[in-house]
Amino acid sequence: MPHIAHVSTYDIRFPTPRELDGSDAMNTDPDYSAAYVAITTSAGDGHAGHGFAFTIGRGNDVQVAAIAAVAEHIVGMDLDRTLADMGGLWKHLVHDSQLRWLGPEKGAVHMAISAVVNALWDLKAKRENKPLWKLLADLTPHQIVELVDFRYLTDALTPDEALDILRRAEPGKAERQAHLLTHGYPAYTTSPGWLGYRDEKLIRLCKQAVADGFTQIKLKVGADLSDDVRRCRVARETIGPRMRMAIDANQRWDVGTAIEWIRKLAPYDPWWIEEPTSPDDVLGHAAIRQAVAPVKVATGEHVQNRIVVKQLLQAGAIDFLQIDAARVGGVNENVANLLLAAKFDVPVCPHADGVGLCELVQHLSMFDFVAVSAALDNRVIEYVDHLHEHFVDPVVIDNGRYVTPTRPGFSATLHPATFDEFTYPLGTEWSAG
Amino acid sequence: MPHIAHVSTYDIRFPTPRELDGSDAMNTDPDYSAAYVAITTSAGDGHAGHGFAFTIGRGNDVQVAAIAAVAEHIVGMDLDRTLADMGGLWKHLVHDSQLRWLGPEKGAVHMAISAVVNALWDLKAKRENKPLWKLLADLTPHQIVELVDFRYLTDALTPDEALDILRRAEPGKAERQAHLLTHGYPAYTTSPGWLGYRDEKLIRLCKQAVADGFTQIKLKVGADLSDDVRRCRVARETIGPRMRMAIDANQRWDVGTAIEWIRKLAPYDPWWIEEPTSPDDVLGHAAIRQAVAPVKVATGEHVQNRIVVKQLLQAGAIDFLQIDAARVGGVNENVANLLLAAKFDVPVCPHADGVGLCELVQHLSMFDFVAVSAALDNRVIEYVDHLHEHFVDPVVIDNGRYVTPTRPGFSATLHPATFDEFTYPLGTEWSAG
Repeated sequence: MPHIAHVSTYDIRFPTPRELDGSDAMNTDPDYSAAYVAITTSAGDGHAGHGFAFTIGRGNDVQVAAIAAVAEHIVGMDLDRTLADMGGLWKHLVHDSQLRWLGPEKGAVHMAISAVVNALWDLKAKRENKPLWKLLADLTPHQIVELVDFRYLTDALTPDEALDILRRAEPGKAERQAHLLTHGYPAYTTSPGWLGYRDEKLIRLCKQAVADGFTQIKLKVGADLSDDVRRCRVARETIGPRMRMAIDANQRWDVGTAIEWIRKLAPYDPWWIEEPTSPDDVLGHAAIRQAVAPVKVATGEHVQNRIVVKQLLQAGAIDFLQIDAARVGGVNENVANLLLAAKFDVPVCPHADGVGLCELVQHLSMFDFVAVSAALDNRVIEYVDHLHEHFVDPVVIDNGRYVTPTRPGFSATLHPATFDEFTYPLGTEWSAG
Repeated sequence: MPHIAHVSTYDIRFPTPRELDGSDAMNTDPDYSAAYVAITTSAGDGHAGHGFAFTIGRGNDVQVAAIAAVAEHIVGMDLDRTLADMGGLWKHLVHDSQLRWLGPEKGAVHMAISAVVNALWDLKAKRENKPLWKLLADLTPHQIVELVDFRYLTDALTPDEALDILRRAEPGKAERQAHLLTHGYPAYTTSPGWLGYRDEKLIRLCKQAVADGFTQIKLKVGADLSDDVRRCRVARETIGPRMRMAIDANQRWDVGTAIEWIRKLAPYDPWWIEEPTSPDDVLGHAAIRQAVAPVKVATGEHVQNRIVVKQLLQAGAIDFLQIDAARVGGVNENVANLLLAAKFDVPVCPHADGVGLCELVQHLSMFDFVAVSAALDNRVIEYVDHLHEHFVDPVVIDNGRYVTPTRPGFSATLHPATFDEFTYPLGTEWSAG
């Protein structure tokens, strides 16, 4: 019987870009980083499972320590039984009666569970010779429901309601898969809008976004109001009245400030305001949404788990749910989030940026389209052109859309050379400096 | 100019008690632990600052790693300037633009900030030769407000409102300090109610609680309904109709289950239900509270930060706020929590158990009484007789009340022998076997 033989962890960090790519109102000097995990087995089939938590520099070592603590649970486990019951595995990790004290279900330990769970999904998909989105979409509604931990959800979504959602999506699955393989999945680009770009660069990148076929851009806001007014005006003038322009405050504001600030930017017709305040503030988001309509409200990249997602939906606090592939407890919890969003009829528009988040989350949106929401309207995946070259199976964007991945796995595998160069602090990139 | 010279961290774990002390519906096999920190200075006055995050075993190493990451910020800092601006220090640590990604403001990193911030408060109090509660109570309203980060709070509490609350409490401060020194602060005991005790032990410990002068006990519930009905009946019969009996589900239930279960226990007149569901579920707590009145709802020990506290109060979700001294970002964030509770007129009844949580949190309740709420009615601090012998300045309980501490500091200092015995995994207690 093959078993899980070894779990290796890596502290991978990429130095701060000198061009202020990735700079926003709260994250002024990121070193995009991955607390990375590789799972090997005794199966002798050459497959390893890869996963990671994304961080932005300091603390990546803490994240690696958390992954090592979670990984102790899986070493020695029977491989086939583990991969056959990913719902059971998730509960086993999340409900560790001691480790949960450091959360529960939030922060470094929960992100570590995400890395380990996603690495096991990568392994499972490679062994079944399918890209992850296809592996998930081929599951039966019952099998999908079994992935989800409904603890703390049943006042908003029961297993039976989840089954109904999935069964309603069964007709047309084959057509939607064919559509994906032909047309891909819509993307939007954040590249023009980082704080710190001069207006000429903003204009140039806005024009580039239009030329590249995107139908939505996003601008970072929240550092300086008069700058934001000018940048929104310049961007709107450049892209014209019909292209969607989202704005993103990265948690910068209190509720009252958010409302005032957004109203000042409203003349430039922002499509959504993203993370106007703390990701923990469900009631704050609800108050902001009510005050700034018709500007829509989006959040999710820092939402810690399905319990907060549930409340954002129950409170009518968001127009778009922005799942992140590597913050909540991995694929399983994001299946819960997709089902919750479907129940409340809120489109999912994932967060993706950093290291490898585009690579991961495309699979979840494609699964959502095929098997859960069965819809594409008002749905877009974020795209930023950062660090894809380090991945063996990087995302491909064509005419403003994600090209549907067909290689087996979860697209999480880094090139071997990346470990040599960017391992912190002894990789060549760091030790040379 | 003296500076912060060194920060040492320690992984201290106490083995699982064989008597099932500390066992509840979610935490079935705790090894009470402290991720401990000691801060030394170049001042040459012999004072060190001590603090810790409490965990329950696995993961304590992750917590130590998080403390080390946070502590990097303070080594080398000017000592007097740091201790003179604890509000500024707090913001410096919490808003680290990279480290915050692992939260923000939650989980292992935020608990690490708590440990470091509390250790600095311990140091400050020792240097000023006052117990922490007295140090805080002697600050002016303006100085107290400066400790608080109002980010994300101003829709519920502004700095001016906080000032008003503190100024209203100024008359009578001297009398309340004198009252504390004479009478101490009311406590309740959780000792009778751990899951796993046989009924004879429950009865014996209930009688002991009455004899010891407590006016409130607490029972753990949530594992088995028929057991809970029997245990509540037995306890109520033993303590009589007038003593308060709280019950605590330790996050075990979904909203619907909570409501059904609590109604089944209502005939035994529980005073409050504690942690009926996930600590993240503000709206769930509100729904439960509405459904189970007149049974009151209490939560807080796992509430991650002031933003969730704010929402629990805004939503009318709780009757009692149970602050924990070492989970949110230390003294500063608990000052915010005390002010929020005062604004919404909700009594604070702290969580205390584990390792050293009684020692810490007594100072916060006593400060609350002297300078914030100015009230004792319906206020009690939890008391459990665990591991106090390891502290240099342990809590003292007399006739059901905490005796007001008078030694300088935050009562967080462990005996040197404890490090030798309980450091994990090389202390004598662990390496022996």
